[in-house]
Amino acid sequence: MSFIRDGWFWETNEQWPGFGVGLGVEKVLYQEKSKYQDILVFKSTTFGNVLVLDGCIQCSDRDEFCYQEMIVHLPLCCHSDPRQVLVVGGGDGGVVREILKHPSVERVVLCEIDEMVVEVSKKFLPNMAKCLSDPRVQIHIGDGIKFTEEHKAEFDIIITDAPDPIGAAIDLYKEGYYKSLRAALKPNGIICSQAENLWIDLHVATALFQQCQRLFPRAGYAFAGMPTYASGQIGFVLATTNPDIDFADPCKKLTEEQIKAMDLRFYNTDVHKAAFVLPQYAKEAMMKQGAESSAVNGNT
Amino acid sequence: MSFIRDGWFWETNEQWPGFGVGLGVEKVLYQEKSKYQDILVFKSTTFGNVLVLDGCIQCSDRDEFCYQEMIVHLPLCCHSDPRQVLVVGGGDGGVVREILKHPSVERVVLCEIDEMVVEVSKKFLPNMAKCLSDPRVQIHIGDGIKFTEEHKAEFDIIITDAPDPIGAAIDLYKEGYYKSLRAALKPNGIICSQAENLWIDLHVATALFQQCQRLFPRAGYAFAGMPTYASGQIGFVLATTNPDIDFADPCKKLTEEQIKAMDLRFYNTDVHKAAFVLPQYAKEAMMKQGAESSAVNGNT
Repeated sequence: MSFIRDGWFWETNEQWPGFGVGLGVEKVLYQEKSKYQDILVFKSTTFGNVLVLDGCIQCSDRDEFCYQEMIVHLPLCCHSDPRQVLVVGGGDGGVVREILKHPSVERVVLCEIDEMVVEVSKKFLPNMAKCLSDPRVQIHIGDGIKFTEEHKAEFDIIITDAPDPIGAAIDLYKEGYYKSLRAALKPNGIICSQAENLWIDLHVATALFQQCQRLFPRAGYAFAGMPTYASGQIGFVLATTNPDIDFADPCKKLTEEQIKAMDLRFYNTDVHKAAFVLPQYAKEAMMKQGAESSAVNGNT
Repeated sequence: MSFIRDGWFWETNEQWPGFGVGLGVEKVLYQEKSKYQDILVFKSTTFGNVLVLDGCIQCSDRDEFCYQEMIVHLPLCCHSDPRQVLVVGGGDGGVVREILKHPSVERVVLCEIDEMVVEVSKKFLPNMAKCLSDPRVQIHIGDGIKFTEEHKAEFDIIITDAPDPIGAAIDLYKEGYYKSLRAALKPNGIICSQAENLWIDLHVATALFQQCQRLFPRAGYAFAGMPTYASGQIGFVLATTNPDIDFADPCKKLTEEQIKAMDLRFYNTDVHKAAFVLPQYAKEAMMKQGAESSAVNGNT
């Protein structure tokens, strides 16, 4: 279990046994139990403010841009005209901030189950939450699975910024949810979901990818470095009903001027392409059918 | 300072303040002070045996292949006929194991300052050290800087598998050493050095890259994920006296059959190319002259 001691927050988790991440703590800023989870915010010594849900680091001021830029610009740069976007989870607002950098976007619906995450982020993570009051943004407090089931053929892009598959969040990794996602997409729509990583969660990553392969004509898996996430990286699964999309070759190629105007610090078009190149062991695991049932801890 | 408590080894370090890595400990296997450093080997709960020098994790059975494969095959696949190879540091033997997978290699000199690292690795990290007794391998116990100064125009490849730039190892990051490396290379030779990472050591990474740019006609910076290293990634600086070499486009492109025969689990030719694609902020930092004097902690 994660804990604070001697000026350090140490994250450990049954999902990735035997591996921990530590961040120096300057000051605990907030600690409450919401209806859904334990919420902790602390000011770290070198990574800015840090949001922790149920003992798991969600984001830090210093490295959040890697995650938010990748989970957003990977799908949006593969869509020729994204207008209607749904975000499931993502109450901190970082994903919404990145989506609004695409001028074609007319509406972003943020469906977050825990209102307290939104409120806490507005207060303690203002650089992430700063676009939540934009007129194009609609905040819906509620269950993402129910919301997607009730909205058919409505979105060009659906981003699932979900926590790890523990407790209630596990349903966001299941086939039923992915079928709802597919049905909630407009023609040529794209989904992109947080998809754990190629180290301590290789079985989850491969299972998600193969599930998307079964349900969509096109699927892809990309990843990026992310220091404060266990094992230092995070992956993304993408899928679309449009068989002509090649996720590793985005139709929108950004110029240096666009990168500057969009204030991108991690993403560029070369980074996009490289993110789909998997280490040999991971490439083999993704191609191996039935990988989802294998346990990989200590065995990559 | 790093410590073991409640069944966990927690690595913290003044070089990357405010960031820590934890590994579950099953059993401490070895703990001694050599002439040069504190040596600790423990059996971890999920990452196999782990070697720690002066409190810093050097390698684990589970993820060492990422590092060893990249620091070796990046330079060797860019050289048309590597025969004579020097390794400075690398007493665990993992780098030597990978070098010997290239059939053109006639001789590998391992120059390690601390004999105890070699002995401990043979005993507790047999999968890394297993090639140290190969007849093509010459082990020289001594100072790598002195060794390179005394050997001119002798090596096709020189790999510096150095610890972090703390204490005595700091000289392995300086211009004097890199001038010796250049002089120790045969025509068209290539160097590849461990070069910290793009997060908590961005200033060291950029300084090393720019130093190589000044001293060689060609230089490159690549990186790869590595869970047990602080921030989850590790970088490599490459340089050569041959201006026709494009590090991001290796002359040796491996087939799937070669990958299998060489027992590669991380490296393949696509991974090679992608490793040189840097996140936007890191690309900008590398291009910015004089970056070596800037402090970046908390400021990427």
